[in-house]
Amino acid sequence: MTADSKKEKIEEIRAEILKRVRPTDEEKTKLETVRKGIIDDIVRIADAQGQCDIVPLSVGSAERNTWLHGNHDIDVFISYPEDIPFDEFYKRSRMILTEMAKTGDSWEDRHSEHPYIHIQKEGFEVDLVPCFRVKSGADIKSAVDRTPFHCAYIKENIKGLEEDVLIMKQFMKGTGVYGSEVRTGGFSGYLTEILTIYYGGFEGVLEHASNWKYGTVIDIADHQTLEHDNPLVVVDPTDPKRNVAAALSLTKFALFIDRAREFLKNPILDYFTPKSYPPMTPAEFEKMMTARGTEMIGISFQTPPKAEDTLYPQLFRMEKSLEELLTRNEFTVINTFSWSEEMEKSVVFIELLTTVLPPLQKRAGPPVWNAANAESFCKKYKNNPTTFSFSIENEKYVAEIPRKYKTAEYLIEDMIFKEAALGRHVRDSMKNGYDVLREKEIMEIKGDDFWKFMNEKLTAQIEP
Amino acid sequence: MTADSKKEKIEEIRAEILKRVRPTDEEKTKLETVRKGIIDDIVRIADAQGQCDIVPLSVGSAERNTWLHGNHDIDVFISYPEDIPFDEFYKRSRMILTEMAKTGDSWEDRHSEHPYIHIQKEGFEVDLVPCFRVKSGADIKSAVDRTPFHCAYIKENIKGLEEDVLIMKQFMKGTGVYGSEVRTGGFSGYLTEILTIYYGGFEGVLEHASNWKYGTVIDIADHQTLEHDNPLVVVDPTDPKRNVAAALSLTKFALFIDRAREFLKNPILDYFTPKSYPPMTPAEFEKMMTARGTEMIGISFQTPPKAEDTLYPQLFRMEKSLEELLTRNEFTVINTFSWSEEMEKSVVFIELLTTVLPPLQKRAGPPVWNAANAESFCKKYKNNPTTFSFSIENEKYVAEIPRKYKTAEYLIEDMIFKEAALGRHVRDSMKNGYDVLREKEIMEIKGDDFWKFMNEKLTAQIEP
Repeated sequence: MTADSKKEKIEEIRAEILKRVRPTDEEKTKLETVRKGIIDDIVRIADAQGQCDIVPLSVGSAERNTWLHGNHDIDVFISYPEDIPFDEFYKRSRMILTEMAKTGDSWEDRHSEHPYIHIQKEGFEVDLVPCFRVKSGADIKSAVDRTPFHCAYIKENIKGLEEDVLIMKQFMKGTGVYGSEVRTGGFSGYLTEILTIYYGGFEGVLEHASNWKYGTVIDIADHQTLEHDNPLVVVDPTDPKRNVAAALSLTKFALFIDRAREFLKNPILDYFTPKSYPPMTPAEFEKMMTARGTEMIGISFQTPPKAEDTLYPQLFRMEKSLEELLTRNEFTVINTFSWSEEMEKSVVFIELLTTVLPPLQKRAGPPVWNAANAESFCKKYKNNPTTFSFSIENEKYVAEIPRKYKTAEYLIEDMIFKEAALGRHVRDSMKNGYDVLREKEIMEIKGDDFWKFMNEKLTAQIEP
Repeated sequence: MTADSKKEKIEEIRAEILKRVRPTDEEKTKLETVRKGIIDDIVRIADAQGQCDIVPLSVGSAERNTWLHGNHDIDVFISYPEDIPFDEFYKRSRMILTEMAKTGDSWEDRHSEHPYIHIQKEGFEVDLVPCFRVKSGADIKSAVDRTPFHCAYIKENIKGLEEDVLIMKQFMKGTGVYGSEVRTGGFSGYLTEILTIYYGGFEGVLEHASNWKYGTVIDIADHQTLEHDNPLVVVDPTDPKRNVAAALSLTKFALFIDRAREFLKNPILDYFTPKSYPPMTPAEFEKMMTARGTEMIGISFQTPPKAEDTLYPQLFRMEKSLEELLTRNEFTVINTFSWSEEMEKSVVFIELLTTVLPPLQKRAGPPVWNAANAESFCKKYKNNPTTFSFSIENEKYVAEIPRKYKTAEYLIEDMIFKEAALGRHVRDSMKNGYDVLREKEIMEIKGDDFWKFMNEKLTAQIEP
């Protein structure tokens, strides 16, 4: 394909994608109406409560015209003067949220240390978040205080690039790198918008991303004051110390580089549609495991009643910790991944070369010239009737001894609470009971979503 | 045990060991007579051939009074003026050796590039080695020219310590670290003598050896001119560039440190008797392998008709090379060792965690930002109907593919000539055919020596 015909092809793709992702006029009107209603409600309720110093702020992609067709998210912040004490802020904001909850078709309290509710209203998913009206993004009192500055920055700088943001977001969705929640570890909307502004549009982002390497730094406001060790560093134009791409995982960073490079080589529409994996049947799973010849274990426990962004770091830490525990004990781990269903079970899966090791274990001790350690190693294993052999190899004592953990299951059951680093909520839940699932038990897990997930884990393909 | 009672105990041990290892007067007279006869023969033959410029030199432990009871070795060198050309040296020395061969009860030509014969005479093992009479150990024309200097140095410096050398040698024999042939990798007689002189006797050597570490340097003549990367560096007092301990393996160096330290803690006679392993029966071997739960493979081929010091480095290199080949292909090697019988078979043994791996292999590719390598990796594995999955993990492409080498046997058979570094003589012999032995075939190997060897390899214990 020549450069010119590629350019033409990308133009065609842009047009086609825009057709798909640009919100309709009807959608826009609907959203505008609902949003206005919410803001009016807030003002009315605040006034009735004598809270005349609050200001409702519409933030989020809807506000900056970078929302995708079919996306029904509205974010409204309720800002308070920055000098009121947190106690008062907390109490007063709860008063407004309590009333606002009643205006929704349904609602959910999502506050952790920060008050925050989610309501559903006329088909929209609405986040209502109290915050402080601080002077700048660098002077925030709580994490959410940055958002209004982000929104303002994008509104000011995005003009003329709104459509590029839409196309960029859809490309990221289609290639599986969009979404900054911990579970995904991809690009946030704000990050996507900054990249689009910085590189002047969709093609500019892809061309530059094709050449990114670990540690690439983008400092759009030219005011970085802190080093970051992340795959990608995008200095927040509203806060010189913050990396907007801090939550981007190395895997998603690398995947995006690959997808950008490949798309530019052969621009086709397929990149804009997420690959979907059909649910595999338990019988297909069994057949696949036989073909792989590996062994799968699942550690299953009641999902802790926590938000995904609290839970997933703990699941990932558990994967890593179990992999280390198994590797230390000479099991070979091939893959780990985690499945979690709210109110149901969470399962950490570990795929192993084999779950059974021979009765003999060869243990290397200290070098002979480390006299103190040598003495304790010899005391333990020399002249021990259970050792197979005790000798010196190169500079070290070596004992061939009976293996304590001949199966991965026994190792996990014996050591999971002693040697695995478990997050607080996962540990609490596991203390109430957990199961070690083998293939037969894994086959009993129900639900299309789970079997789609398993299919993706076992047969993932980067396409096109 | 108090320091005094230990000292006393060591005195008792010295006395007891001397009783055992000091040659009897009868032995001494006999050796003196045979040696004198050999020297007389050399002079007589040389004179008859008109070779009046040669000088026979008695070297070796017999000459320096450091030989052990029961040792019947005599070393006599036939020295030539250093300025004669090698051709002439070779021709003339062969003339003498040809005649000397006839004086033995039997004889053997041991020359490689250097002429050299071994004769048996009246129960003695006699080495007859032509050499050049060079000016110093640093000016040698062939490797053997050093020996007369070594002998002279020890004779001059050993006075009063001869008995300590005997005890030292027996301690080294008893602990399995004596002998500088490649197969053993232990201490040579000359090295033992220098250590005894340097540290002032048997106890001095043990006390200092207890505190040796990798890289210990002993420069008795204080004239080192070259760095050596060896566990122990003992600069040759007759050649500043040479390390007398160059052939000492790290394992034997470390073992000696351990043995010295342990003996000084608890001095008992047991250290002076080599541990012997009874031959195990094939049935015991089978039972032991079941207990270990590991798997043993032997690669068996006709022993190349070469001296052990030529053959063993090649066997050791083959062990290392096979271990690397297997490890690269994800097999876990536990032990390797080599057995060799002159005129019969040599067998390189490899003990593995398992000889069978699952059909799936996970292969990590280049980082995405290595565009050239990425392209060839993707070309090979992406959209390949045989891959299980193709994805990105952290910064790298990862393909789950069918494993080519699912058994260690197939890997070895397919790759031994392509990827294993084989010494010339081993390769030549294997090209004529080799077998991969499994447990059943190993059980068919005959000979007490082999089954002692196997017993030692599987049940080695450092004792006391």
